[in-house]
Amino acid sequence: MEKIFVIKIGGNIIDNAEALDIFLQKFSDIKDHKILIHGGGKLATELATDLGIKQKLIDGRRVTDAATLKLVTMVYAGSINKNIVAKLQANKCNALGLCGADANLITASKRIVNKNDYGFVGDIKPNGINTSFLQLLFENNITSVIAPITHNNEGQLLNTNADSIANEMAKALSKLFDVHLIYCFNKKGILKDVNDENSVIKTITNNMAVQLKLEGRVHEGMIPKIDNALQAVAAGVHKVSLGHALALNEIVKGNAGTDIQ
Amino acid sequence: MEKIFVIKIGGNIIDNAEALDIFLQKFSDIKDHKILIHGGGKLATELATDLGIKQKLIDGRRVTDAATLKLVTMVYAGSINKNIVAKLQANKCNALGLCGADANLITASKRIVNKNDYGFVGDIKPNGINTSFLQLLFENNITSVIAPITHNNEGQLLNTNADSIANEMAKALSKLFDVHLIYCFNKKGILKDVNDENSVIKTITNNMAVQLKLEGRVHEGMIPKIDNALQAVAAGVHKVSLGHALALNEIVKGNAGTDIQ
Repeated sequence: MEKIFVIKIGGNIIDNAEALDIFLQKFSDIKDHKILIHGGGKLATELATDLGIKQKLIDGRRVTDAATLKLVTMVYAGSINKNIVAKLQANKCNALGLCGADANLITASKRIVNKNDYGFVGDIKPNGINTSFLQLLFENNITSVIAPITHNNEGQLLNTNADSIANEMAKALSKLFDVHLIYCFNKKGILKDVNDENSVIKTITNNMAVQLKLEGRVHEGMIPKIDNALQAVAAGVHKVSLGHALALNEIVKGNAGTDIQ
Repeated sequence: MEKIFVIKIGGNIIDNAEALDIFLQKFSDIKDHKILIHGGGKLATELATDLGIKQKLIDGRRVTDAATLKLVTMVYAGSINKNIVAKLQANKCNALGLCGADANLITASKRIVNKNDYGFVGDIKPNGINTSFLQLLFENNITSVIAPITHNNEGQLLNTNADSIANEMAKALSKLFDVHLIYCFNKKGILKDVNDENSVIKTITNNMAVQLKLEGRVHEGMIPKIDNALQAVAAGVHKVSLGHALALNEIVKGNAGTDIQ
């Protein structure tokens, strides 16, 4: 099967213009087919403050009301997405910015948990990823840049977690491609000791994960990331890596970050 | 040659949610290949006011400074574009939202006139329209929805007039297709008497335009629209129509609006 990279970046790199430029150059250097999924950053929060839009929470989880949805659609699918696309084009990487409504790329349903209404938050539907459109783009050497906004196919946009999009997209594409899913974050990888950036665990397998968790040898915040990665691998993704955005090319080669297989 | 429609809508329909829904249903009903180009609306101006971004003018022309560019990118390519796409998807029209940076669709250069710097305003370059990408979308029955933001291919987004995009796109596509360019606005067509909505001129040819202008029989504000349309026809566009957005299906059939040929 042909190799593809599904790469996710978050706020820590999006908010730093200089680091983002370096990352996008490294991303452009990847010769295989690739997809970039980006989260938000400080811009949405800053703009919400400037516009007096208050954040609502239910049980500690953010609620996306109509004003917030409008804001994140503007910031994620407008400002962040199009600026990344323009920069990739300058690097001769033929990028195409997308949200989940575009070409019906990602269908989601509005989240209702325990009768709580989280507003316009979407969870990706089973078979909600339009892999045939992604395949068309690969065939034409077009690189998708995906903002974390989806739709319900009934005219409603929905705010969706970028990590979940990366995970579901990697799983869906693993039926057609040899997928390497890379989560870029602000650490060098999964650390044995959260205070020691050089304590990166090179590889984590299913059995090791159980042991690491039992022995309390990984930082608690890392556990959901490991579990999600293992679930992606179980669903057919060839490899999931976690590492620092600026080490992208080393992660791609298997020389940096944590590989979960 | 295969027939395609290039259709432009402006603020008057974008700002009216109910009318926009009706228009998008009519647009979805067109069976031939089609492209939708949208301008801005009140939202950008409202948001600028809320954020305290002041509009600058040079010789009565708007200047797009960095803050304004960020704002219009968010509003045009984010909010307006993605909401239209989601609504078209609900109508079973497989829409894809684009700005000029996406897939290198529209390349522009920063406008400098008489040494005046209008900021991040872009004029479309000769051969600046990527018709092969549009052709790929047509072949796959994907309908482009285009926001009036372009790029200079060096990483810079630029604010570009939506009417110019429609005109240049129609001209570029006329080498490959039988193009019908439709400008939707808030009048039934070019009026003989600006106060009489029923004085629509059915057809305007080059010769007639000269006469109409000489005799002062068309409203002054209409003259640039007529001149642009005649220029598009001279460059190979089969027909240019001007009419009301809500009469779209009638304009398509040739039963409403003004045809310029």
